[in-house]
Amino acid sequence: MTQPPHAPLLFATRAGTLYIGEQPVTALAERLGTPFYAYDSRLIELRIKELRDVLPSQVQIHYAVKANPFPPLLSYMAGRVDGCDVASAGELEKALEAGFSPETISFAGPGKRDAELMAALQANITINVESAGELERLARLGEMLGIRPRVALRINPDFELKGSGMRMGGGAKPFGIDAEQAPAIIREINALDIDFQGLHIFTGSQSLSMEAIIQAQSGALNLARMLLEGAGLPLRKINIGGGLGIPYFPGENRLNIKPMGDQLHHLLETHRGWLGDAHLVLELGRFLVGEAGVYVTRIVDRKVSRGETFLITDGGMHHHLALSGNLGQVIRKNYPVYLAHRVGKPAEEIVNIHGPLCTPLDVLGHKVALPRAEIGDLIAVTQSGAYGLTASPVHFLGHPLPSEVLIDGGHE
Amino acid sequence: MTQPPHAPLLFATRAGTLYIGEQPVTALAERLGTPFYAYDSRLIELRIKELRDVLPSQVQIHYAVKANPFPPLLSYMAGRVDGCDVASAGELEKALEAGFSPETISFAGPGKRDAELMAALQANITINVESAGELERLARLGEMLGIRPRVALRINPDFELKGSGMRMGGGAKPFGIDAEQAPAIIREINALDIDFQGLHIFTGSQSLSMEAIIQAQSGALNLARMLLEGAGLPLRKINIGGGLGIPYFPGENRLNIKPMGDQLHHLLETHRGWLGDAHLVLELGRFLVGEAGVYVTRIVDRKVSRGETFLITDGGMHHHLALSGNLGQVIRKNYPVYLAHRVGKPAEEIVNIHGPLCTPLDVLGHKVALPRAEIGDLIAVTQSGAYGLTASPVHFLGHPLPSEVLIDGGHE
Repeated sequence: MTQPPHAPLLFATRAGTLYIGEQPVTALAERLGTPFYAYDSRLIELRIKELRDVLPSQVQIHYAVKANPFPPLLSYMAGRVDGCDVASAGELEKALEAGFSPETISFAGPGKRDAELMAALQANITINVESAGELERLARLGEMLGIRPRVALRINPDFELKGSGMRMGGGAKPFGIDAEQAPAIIREINALDIDFQGLHIFTGSQSLSMEAIIQAQSGALNLARMLLEGAGLPLRKINIGGGLGIPYFPGENRLNIKPMGDQLHHLLETHRGWLGDAHLVLELGRFLVGEAGVYVTRIVDRKVSRGETFLITDGGMHHHLALSGNLGQVIRKNYPVYLAHRVGKPAEEIVNIHGPLCTPLDVLGHKVALPRAEIGDLIAVTQSGAYGLTASPVHFLGHPLPSEVLIDGGHE
Repeated sequence: MTQPPHAPLLFATRAGTLYIGEQPVTALAERLGTPFYAYDSRLIELRIKELRDVLPSQVQIHYAVKANPFPPLLSYMAGRVDGCDVASAGELEKALEAGFSPETISFAGPGKRDAELMAALQANITINVESAGELERLARLGEMLGIRPRVALRINPDFELKGSGMRMGGGAKPFGIDAEQAPAIIREINALDIDFQGLHIFTGSQSLSMEAIIQAQSGALNLARMLLEGAGLPLRKINIGGGLGIPYFPGENRLNIKPMGDQLHHLLETHRGWLGDAHLVLELGRFLVGEAGVYVTRIVDRKVSRGETFLITDGGMHHHLALSGNLGQVIRKNYPVYLAHRVGKPAEEIVNIHGPLCTPLDVLGHKVALPRAEIGDLIAVTQSGAYGLTASPVHFLGHPLPSEVLIDGGHE
């Protein structure tokens, strides 16, 4: 219990019970059954407002669908952000169904199949091209279909987002075109019959260092200038990626985004000459929805094994792989977990929380301090709105799928 | 290229092309599309025969459904092994559909819900009870339904399977009843109206040390004797778990199972007095099917980034999480990967193989030596028959599901 605390809880509690919007989780569990995911639209709305408040109007906010493609959440987003980024033809279909306009959708992904490129051409969305070979394939397919491709170039910069959880740029990478290969490709573009949109420069994700984020954004704009100034190409947008993290583990803190807004105002002034009124795009997934989601599971058994107390729950790694420490983590750390009807009450014991899967990997919490929990009680895991159910092995061991619900405006 | 080689390939090749049974993978890819999983029943049959050849007839072979619940494979198994182990009501349903008789099915899992216990009671299968609380719940539900529960006790031994990839026993664990708590529970069993079957002692999985496996099996039988000799309970079976691994990574070798067979003959002699003609059960998943499966994916792009060559494929971690290093591995190592039409040809280059997902986690091979590969070529990953598709986040990034096919007797 000497480790630093988790970042403060963003959800309300009343008499110790966790609320999602106006709904006590206990009532949600009665109605939906367990386990379930609930997403609170008010936290998403608040997050978008926080961003709008600090960002120049020339900076657009895009939603990265991969973070959470739950259809009601996607529809909610369609009315509130400026566009979205998809990573497959499947996500494209969902984005269109949710109401995103084609001209606000872009498609990135290092291994786009011909069928996917054709779907993207037919939908007339922006395709972020990841290699010289992909550009050739796309031009050929466009010609075949009689559709002029709408193209942005994805650039692998020669620097990375420092301290990021996932490095998407810098060094040798499967993503995008190396910055130093880009000038030759940009020279070719004028000869191709394509509708050039701009660049996509993604350096990394899940950074909690505002200094590193600012540095990466500045680097991205300098790189874009170097590549495009004087290239004689029309310019509609520069996607400068995302990278904004949320606190998952003890000792991590929420980002203060004000300095980023200030810096972007300053950068737009500096780059006005070549950038004109082209948009900058911030592509955010986790940062928009990660803190709005809760995973709730019920305790099925309680037992003591060799001096340690185990709570066994009806949900686990098959619904929430990241929680179990198996989605890119090298060392597993505990997410914030709460006994859902006794939030904020003093801890009474140290417990291990395990899911129902017959594997030692199915860990929800290791040596967590909680008030005393009994069979039938609910465990709530916050920071679960992004890369939760969508990134989990849902069929592993044949358990039922959990429910998902968007609590919109406080109500379901 | 100085690292030790992978264990030898078990599939045939003709003129460099990989065959699954009588099928060249190139033809399978044409017919099924890519990516796909193919399982060769002949390798499963061979494995079962190898086991039967060395095991005493008193030792039964059970299939652990969780390793691969693909229905045609499960049906194939139903005719060839002595029973199966399920880990959820969902797996139970699949096992019954595949043709396993209820009396040959057992159900283990630390978090069985009431609905699952009731399904198991109604199917009249053996329930491996994991805690005193679960035993009480089960007795109560049995009474309610008017069904006498068929019960085995799962014991958490006071030792572990050394060198195992996953530790399922020893120390404080969510699985089973601590050995030292078991005598009190066993004394209670006579007072309960249940049909006692025996014990389930699982120490670990994926061990490649035959010495450790033999030691664990001997330990399991000694523990069972200590708990049951003179307890006045009927005894039908002792499930001594599995633990037999297969070689995944460079330098790992296949197990020689002959010493295990010899040891089990010897143990049965030693324990004849109290064991009588009760069966021993070996519960095997990975060992039966892991080497029979291949994952095949097509190269979509080929690019060079800062001096490293990348092959981008249409399949990846969404179909094969373990391959990407995100299923329990601390340090990612390369599975055996082959250029499917040039197997056994000299390596010509070092490549990184990445899947189509827009995340740096989607790695199929890091610095692998291969003959020169082009767009459209097939990459085959062997040792992929267990914990493959079933353990993967299939919906992550919205790509299509792969095909699965059992090649039975050389043919589809």
